[in-house]
Amino acid sequence: MTFFDTLDILGTAAFAISGALSAMNRKLDLFGIFIIAFVTSIGGGTVRDILIGNTPVSWMQNTLNIYLIGGITILSIIFRNKLDYLKKSLFLFDTIGLGIFTIIGVETGINAGLAPIVSIALGAMTGCFGGVIRDILCNEIPVIFRKEIYATASIAGGICFMILYSLDVNQNIIYTSTTLFIITIRLLVVWYKVSLPLFTVTNNTDK
Amino acid sequence: MTFFDTLDILGTAAFAISGALSAMNRKLDLFGIFIIAFVTSIGGGTVRDILIGNTPVSWMQNTLNIYLIGGITILSIIFRNKLDYLKKSLFLFDTIGLGIFTIIGVETGINAGLAPIVSIALGAMTGCFGGVIRDILCNEIPVIFRKEIYATASIAGGICFMILYSLDVNQNIIYTSTTLFIITIRLLVVWYKVSLPLFTVTNNTDK
Amino acid sequence: MTFFDTLDILGTAAFAISGALSAMNRKLDLFGIFIIAFVTSIGGGTVRDILIGNTPVSWMQNTLNIYLIGGITILSIIFRNKLDYLKKSLFLFDTIGLGIFTIIGVETGINAGLAPIVSIALGAMTGCFGGVIRDILCNEIPVIFRKEIYATASIAGGICFMILYSLDVNQNIIYTSTTLFIITIRLLVVWYKVSLPLFTVTNNTDK
Repeated sequence: MTFFDTLDILGTAAFAISGALSAMNRKLDLFGIFIIAFVTSIGGGTVRDILIGNTPVSWMQNTLNIYLIGGITILSIIFRNKLDYLKKSLFLFDTIGLGIFTIIGVETGINAGLAPIVSIALGAMTGCFGGVIRDILCNEIPVIFRKEIYATASIAGGICFMILYSLDVNQNIIYTSTTLFIITIRLLVVWYKVSLPLFTVTNNTDK
Repeated sequence: MTFFDTLDILGTAAFAISGALSAMNRKLDLFGIFIIAFVTSIGGGTVRDILIGNTPVSWMQNTLNIYLIGGITILSIIFRNKLDYLKKSLFLFDTIGLGIFTIIGVETGINAGLAPIVSIALGAMTGCFGGVIRDILCNEIPVIFRKEIYATASIAGGICFMILYSLDVNQNIIYTSTTLFIITIRLLVVWYKVSLPLFTVTNNTDK
Repeated sequence: MTFFDTLDILGTAAFAISGALSAMNRKLDLFGIFIIAFVTSIGGGTVRDILIGNTPVSWMQNTLNIYLIGGITILSIIFRNKLDYLKKSLFLFDTIGLGIFTIIGVETGINAGLAPIVSIALGAMTGCFGGVIRDILCNEIPVIFRKEIYATASIAGGICFMILYSLDVNQNIIYTSTTLFIITIRLLVVWYKVSLPLFTVTNNTDK
């Protein structure tokens, strides 16, 4: 198993926990918890695979991840109060998943021979779309449009990845440092309550 | 025309009626009724085709279904009061569509050489996603997250299908019995008001 | 650069402006504005490419559009008050984008050897889905279900395109006249407040 595979498993597990916690917070039933854990975990990679034409999509070719998500969800349900006791645990797992899945997306784009800017976009989509689909299914405004700088951290990480990649840095070092970079940005941003500027028009004439 | 094709037509028609009734209940205009009937009817199969890379997706290669859905929608509009008079008719057609489309999805997965658990998931998506997309377009919480055991019936049917398939039962018998199994589960569940357990965390600290 | 490419650039720009204005009206932050401009601009074409299996999808193979959308969005932010001062500017750009993207979708369907009715559907999806995804991301009822005859104008344009095409009219004339036809229909419809008929059932028994 390569370092890349290990990261994939860690990201899948982190997003599964984040999804399961999120579903329990929204008081969904048992099936809803599994579905949301699953969608949060594989949604980003599925969108990525569909966009580049890598079908049948990854999780269909690698059933290991399905069992992993199932097991993680059961553990999350059993230890739900302990996980929640660790305040901010949902936020933390979500951030770890974001960091790891972003670099997997960028790497996939590079391997498919896509332009750097497209690979960065692919990384951001792989990182963010699990959460976006989760929020759309729950009929909420997607996470990327809420106050926190979510996708921006992912894009910054993608740019960092491309720079290190063009400098021929060792691959595992790129993976590790980019992931930590994304996690650090998001934590710092939330800690210091940074937010992006708003631009509003003088006369709001919504269509 | 094979038994499989007949089922496909029945499922398409059932979901088209369910979609048209649903759109009329939501007071959408003429175009909205057609679009919702169409999306409910072909949404699940389209998601399935995209995920396994079967493109152009089925309804693009088989225009018969497009005319079928159009005709069914016109009939549904004409006979809307009669259809509604049959109480629970929307529910009934939705359930028939769920049963039939689930087995079509599972069968497609098996033919594509996917693992049993993936084929079951594909069946559930083919059966449920028409309704999910319909609800997302109408800005409602998707049907699979409401109280009734919707997707669970579909998954149970998929498991039943795989067991019968591994026992080498005659294909048409598998199709018929699995479809009836799914319909029966859903009817029983709604009749006896069974619902899946909820797991909530002690301190709700939503992100 | 062909006339077709020119139209593609115009449509992309029109939808990017429409998306950016729409996001500013909804008070999204800087990232939200870019994302909505981007999604509105490439959403329809992406859905079209996925459905017919043209992957990696167009915008991944043509990075020019990405920079175009980025630049247009920056200009839209700078000149936001001037753009808004031109009352109905959002509506106008949205309509231009609808007209252009519809014919691109129909043309793509014809080139892929799909049936006329499927090509018309593909045109409508290319024209409308950018706006639909934009609205779903913003948690609003999609534009095609609001009062105005939006998708219907697109479908009428698609039918007009197919008729001219079957009469062997010069391609550039087809492009221009169909685009103007769609824009005219939508403007007339909004001007005269035409709307499609509603069909409601006597006893509303929503599921």
